[in-house]
Amino acid sequence: MLSSCWRQFPVTFAARRFTAAAASADRVALIQGSSRGLGLEYAKQLLSRPGHRVIGTCRDPGSAHELQKLQDSSKGRLSIVRLDVTDEQTIQAAAEEVSKQHGHLDLLINVTGILHIPGKISPETALSRITPEALDVVFKTNAFGPILTAKAFAPLLEKAESCSGASNERPAVVANMSARVGSLADNRLGGWYSYRSSKTALNQLTKCMCLEFARKHRKIAGILLHPGTVDTGLSEPFQKNVKPEKLFTRERAVQQLLGIIDSTTMKDNGRYIAWDGQDIPW
Amino acid sequence: MLSSCWRQFPVTFAARRFTAAAASADRVALIQGSSRGLGLEYAKQLLSRPGHRVIGTCRDPGSAHELQKLQDSSKGRLSIVRLDVTDEQTIQAAAEEVSKQHGHLDLLINVTGILHIPGKISPETALSRITPEALDVVFKTNAFGPILTAKAFAPLLEKAESCSGASNERPAVVANMSARVGSLADNRLGGWYSYRSSKTALNQLTKCMCLEFARKHRKIAGILLHPGTVDTGLSEPFQKNVKPEKLFTRERAVQQLLGIIDSTTMKDNGRYIAWDGQDIPW
Repeated sequence: MLSSCWRQFPVTFAARRFTAAAASADRVALIQGSSRGLGLEYAKQLLSRPGHRVIGTCRDPGSAHELQKLQDSSKGRLSIVRLDVTDEQTIQAAAEEVSKQHGHLDLLINVTGILHIPGKISPETALSRITPEALDVVFKTNAFGPILTAKAFAPLLEKAESCSGASNERPAVVANMSARVGSLADNRLGGWYSYRSSKTALNQLTKCMCLEFARKHRKIAGILLHPGTVDTGLSEPFQKNVKPEKLFTRERAVQQLLGIIDSTTMKDNGRYIAWDGQDIPW
Repeated sequence: MLSSCWRQFPVTFAARRFTAAAASADRVALIQGSSRGLGLEYAKQLLSRPGHRVIGTCRDPGSAHELQKLQDSSKGRLSIVRLDVTDEQTIQAAAEEVSKQHGHLDLLINVTGILHIPGKISPETALSRITPEALDVVFKTNAFGPILTAKAFAPLLEKAESCSGASNERPAVVANMSARVGSLADNRLGGWYSYRSSKTALNQLTKCMCLEFARKHRKIAGILLHPGTVDTGLSEPFQKNVKPEKLFTRERAVQQLLGIIDSTTMKDNGRYIAWDGQDIPW
């Protein structure tokens, strides 16, 4: 019972309610895909703020050494939960675990994404290079996984209103990491068939979700974020044509994106936003 | 040898060349998904024109009785080839068969699409109803299948220039059946998560393909078509809110779409076009 937000407690549990109320003043954020890259940096920066509790998910917590180090220094404010975005059972199990631990969720950031797997998957430079295997894994990871994660955590995001006072001005937020290359209007080069179209599919799935949030008058806003080109493992093989001033450090990229997330209101629900706050055309 | 287009024949095969040249004057069209609905109607209307040969593909030719009847009355101008859009081996095998039969292709229409499977898949009215199983089958059928089919037949479409004189003004055409609900800009209702986003992904995959066609100066144009709401099995459970004048017969829908296909030039490459010829915003 202690784990749920205090308004759900029967009146007779006064002492416990007080304890839980103190805990529930913290904002609870879940970073889906936090063992490295942008996800790890999100966890670091959120933990550096007072009043935040963070759940970091990854496929294999046992080998997430950086995340473990962060946990060791987090004074109990970071928990690590197993979640494989391509396996819905693990997503549902993670949601149950977070429900027990916190009873609600204020922020869900879907970070996990695949562009290449050395020796297995490369962004397709031609129609002739598309394979069913690459389409399958790239879509499962970049498009289906985030929306299935949002599905599983939506009931906890709904509870943000009663647990931590989510409002139109400061709603619970689902931030899905998209990319400018997912834009149809902005596609002038082609190529990267699977990656591009998986992000485009993520945009449409997220837009549907946002319309549903708006229609049901939930205090949850969904946004799609383009981080720019960030110096991570995902972009590493493709950085040679990027001007140095356009290649962001992880620290800078996450600062910029958290700035957008922090200022999100229900008016932003459904936007597709670049790192500089500009809307990207669909 | 007879099966390839005549320009590929050595000069010594004069008699055979003449026969093949006569055959190559016919335009060769492949309808992917032609056992019923719009695909069957495309086959009918193309066969009603002089100078057209049609390949109708379907998953199970043995049970495609309507298509078989059409073949019986086609005077040898319709061939039926097995192709399961979710199984790339069958797509490649179909391309090899068409290569042997015709040596080139002038028109590829990707028709197959799933919106619902009675008792198994329904368009999702809420985030909570999304399942990995539906995402998987809907995307494989509506998005991955058409682009893998285009990949397999692209070498035959490239040969249309030398075999049947494809040009900028009258290129070979890949027509992918999209739908207005795949539009991001036009999505004001949400819902139908899998179907919508699979068509959005198809739009992006097709746009990438079209940019590649343009860059390589091939005489092939790709277009995305919205047929309107047509009285087929796909739309049948969802027709009750459609005004009668907006519910097209298959005959009318295909007449309208063939009108667009007939007038396609390289300038149309990459367009997303409604049944009335209007561009749909991405």
